[in-house]
Amino acid sequence: MKAIQHTINHHFTITRRLPRPVRARQELLFDDTNRSSKASNPATRLAQSLTHMLHNQIESIHTQKTLTQSNFSTILEDKSNTPISFPKDDISNNWEEFHGANNWDDLLDPINPSLRQELLKYGELAQATYDAFDYDPYSEYCGSCRYNRNKLFEKLSLTRHGYHVTKYIYATSQIDLPRWLEKSQVAETWSTHSNWMGFVAVSDDEESCRIGRRDIVVSWRGTVSASEWYEDFQRNLETFGHGDAKVEEGFLSIYTTKFRSSRYNKSSASEQVMQELSKLIDFYKKRGEEVSLTITGHSLGGALALLNAYEAAAIFVNLPVSVISFAAPRIGNSVFRDELHELGVKILRVVVKQDVVPWTAGMVFNNESLQNFDEITGGLQWIHPHAGVELKLDARASPYLKRGLQLLGHHMLETYLHLLDGYESSKVPFRPDATRDIALVNKECDLLINELRIPPRWYQVANKGLVQNAYGRWVKPKRDPEDIPSPTSESANCNEMQSVLGY
Amino acid sequence: MKAIQHTINHHFTITRRLPRPVRARQELLFDDTNRSSKASNPATRLAQSLTHMLHNQIESIHTQKTLTQSNFSTILEDKSNTPISFPKDDISNNWEEFHGANNWDDLLDPINPSLRQELLKYGELAQATYDAFDYDPYSEYCGSCRYNRNKLFEKLSLTRHGYHVTKYIYATSQIDLPRWLEKSQVAETWSTHSNWMGFVAVSDDEESCRIGRRDIVVSWRGTVSASEWYEDFQRNLETFGHGDAKVEEGFLSIYTTKFRSSRYNKSSASEQVMQELSKLIDFYKKRGEEVSLTITGHSLGGALALLNAYEAAAIFVNLPVSVISFAAPRIGNSVFRDELHELGVKILRVVVKQDVVPWTAGMVFNNESLQNFDEITGGLQWIHPHAGVELKLDARASPYLKRGLQLLGHHMLETYLHLLDGYESSKVPFRPDATRDIALVNKECDLLINELRIPPRWYQVANKGLVQNAYGRWVKPKRDPEDIPSPTSESANCNEMQSVLGY
Repeated sequence: MKAIQHTINHHFTITRRLPRPVRARQELLFDDTNRSSKASNPATRLAQSLTHMLHNQIESIHTQKTLTQSNFSTILEDKSNTPISFPKDDISNNWEEFHGANNWDDLLDPINPSLRQELLKYGELAQATYDAFDYDPYSEYCGSCRYNRNKLFEKLSLTRHGYHVTKYIYATSQIDLPRWLEKSQVAETWSTHSNWMGFVAVSDDEESCRIGRRDIVVSWRGTVSASEWYEDFQRNLETFGHGDAKVEEGFLSIYTTKFRSSRYNKSSASEQVMQELSKLIDFYKKRGEEVSLTITGHSLGGALALLNAYEAAAIFVNLPVSVISFAAPRIGNSVFRDELHELGVKILRVVVKQDVVPWTAGMVFNNESLQNFDEITGGLQWIHPHAGVELKLDARASPYLKRGLQLLGHHMLETYLHLLDGYESSKVPFRPDATRDIALVNKECDLLINELRIPPRWYQVANKGLVQNAYGRWVKPKRDPEDIPSPTSESANCNEMQSVLGY
Repeated sequence: MKAIQHTINHHFTITRRLPRPVRARQELLFDDTNRSSKASNPATRLAQSLTHMLHNQIESIHTQKTLTQSNFSTILEDKSNTPISFPKDDISNNWEEFHGANNWDDLLDPINPSLRQELLKYGELAQATYDAFDYDPYSEYCGSCRYNRNKLFEKLSLTRHGYHVTKYIYATSQIDLPRWLEKSQVAETWSTHSNWMGFVAVSDDEESCRIGRRDIVVSWRGTVSASEWYEDFQRNLETFGHGDAKVEEGFLSIYTTKFRSSRYNKSSASEQVMQELSKLIDFYKKRGEEVSLTITGHSLGGALALLNAYEAAAIFVNLPVSVISFAAPRIGNSVFRDELHELGVKILRVVVKQDVVPWTAGMVFNNESLQNFDEITGGLQWIHPHAGVELKLDARASPYLKRGLQLLGHHMLETYLHLLDGYESSKVPFRPDATRDIALVNKECDLLINELRIPPRWYQVANKGLVQNAYGRWVKPKRDPEDIPSPTSESANCNEMQSVLGY
């Protein structure tokens, strides 16, 4: 009982550590896309950049056209009674371009509407990893996916994208990254080491026909409350690959750690996903199909996507590999970036101008406040270069969002998808014919203006999952047996792939 | 837009006021049931009493028999598959005793099991005012009851008690009591001044038969987060009635304020309830029925119950009037207490030893923490006497509750009902054959031991009331027209009473 109490207290305590003595760094790197005067302290630069951002936002309050409340009522009334459109343009003839073959030249500003739809699709597949994650510390399945892989898209209303999940990915870490791993408070739990980290999915025949190839997607789950960001600030870069490429050890540990004794991480996330990719690519190549790999993820998930892309491109030669990342932090040195380019990995980084995470190596979020900001800036010793092409969104373009510094809100994936949906070009404000549901923005944060009357952080289950049994007592129902995680049933075999995909 | 923003900020800001200069008091009164050395400062006494309470709790950690985790698993497993029993003992021959005619002599320690059931019934009718209250600041009906009076008990699974609601009560206040009134953030709202404060209900024929008389119940809603407690500390006693009885002006204002211009408080809560009582008593007396009045409420609701009882006993002579209050604070001077006794009002105050509210004139709760504690104790100048008979429950008796100082948890009505259900006598621990659902304790707080695996604060609606419309968009549904508050349909007429009650 004491041990449990201890765990619980630990879980709920907001960690406020004293800053550790900053270690000597092996690497002192700067983003070479910006002015990189060695004389300016990176902490100072971060502070400057935040000041600049703040200034932008304050300015925006004055320059923004104010919509009256009746405007909003009308807009909402109109919007809520219109379908959410999913133009399913045939892109079979130019899918390579949309997949980054020409580094998205001339496709981003103004954005090609078909490309926007493709990017939203990948973004929603990334969002699925949040929406289906079991965060409930009182569930014995905390840290797993709430549904089995065959039900995932149906439960999240994502079947319209035309993909099937073939495998779930699990990860652990050998480095103690506080508040990274979601852990159950229950003693007998599905796993004490591992968390569900995402999935591998494949386009079905109809979707493959529309997009011109069999598209394999890997979607990596991120985490917005985790202090792995914070911890990373105080850690070293580690070698990745066979050369001088280096990445931050926190991300690498999540990607590569395995424990023989664990149930879900006898193999690492890397091994799980690479094995699945190998199987799928082999399966479709043998059938003479054209195959692409698209790796997506938000925040930490965007970082893992890069590691995954690096490995996949190195092993599967001639396979088109793209990364569509959202709000991804910098993770490696310039050699890592250069090698990614040399391997032919195409990277489209979607970033929101007001989101601090992509501009720094990491951040700690806790509710709406930035924790230990001084410690973070004090500890900041390097800024790593970003790789790939950037699609920059401006939160000020949307008339639906609150102004001012919104550290958590501007980092959320749903905010990214909202802004992407409204994005036309860097010179034009939010397009009025955007169709995505605006209410989704407030799922996990408080970013929508109050006039819209959408409650903040509304994404919650009734009675935290308790239901009344036949006697009228409130109980935690058992999970459906088919949704209980099981290492053996979590990868599609060839028979299943054939039957699902219609062979 | 600015005005709305202001309201919202105000609503969410935790008020941290500087202590006002303590005004000269008209009254300096002490609880004369305790030793009342005038030399000892009341603030010091409160501090001593809290220290004592803390000591009790620390002690309890050592003396309590520790149950192992497997014990709890077994208990829970067993409990959750048993019915919640509601022994419907025939008390028609001794209802006067249970109603307090003999001041509950020899009925409380050990408690008479039939009386316990009656008290639980009234407690659940008080709890109904919390469970059905619309707290949603994004609802245009924030501050009202979520259901109309004919559906209330059905929606809350309380039809088993055999009562029908005949009228809803609304209140406002002419004194600015910050955070007392729950207000909508929406501009066009059902009421800007008033909150739903409870209801009047009548026992149906079957229940009346079992309990030996037609029982009229008034149930007053309390509030646990409100700072009316705090404000009250800094206010004066006001005259109530025609003599020297005085009560705190905060409570009195809620009970008696009316505004001509308002929709729901053209008449005060007092006038609404007294008019309804008059109508009902007249109706049943004319039919030659024996009638009783039982007034219940928790916290602030318990205070209002006393004001209501005082008025009712003064006006309806020979009507048996009882108050069953839970966690009620002190509210008046000793003349008020004496007059209540002289009027024949019978008062049973259920209090939990570890709850600080009944021992002080008031408290401010915000989440789990006590706000501005120093200011409160600093401002404390008097302690008013309690009236009536006390039934003292001990939180340490229950093996299901967390130990230590639990300011919010020990004050919650569900905790009271749990402890009452387990109460046998002051000398015996929690009775093992208590049948109430233990999970209810954690509805709005975090008091159950973690081994029970009941999430804290689990009472919440799915997606904060948003639902997907036909287009898949998340929208706030309109309230059912029948549940929209309406001043005209909120009191039963004689025809309805006859048809409902089976004449």
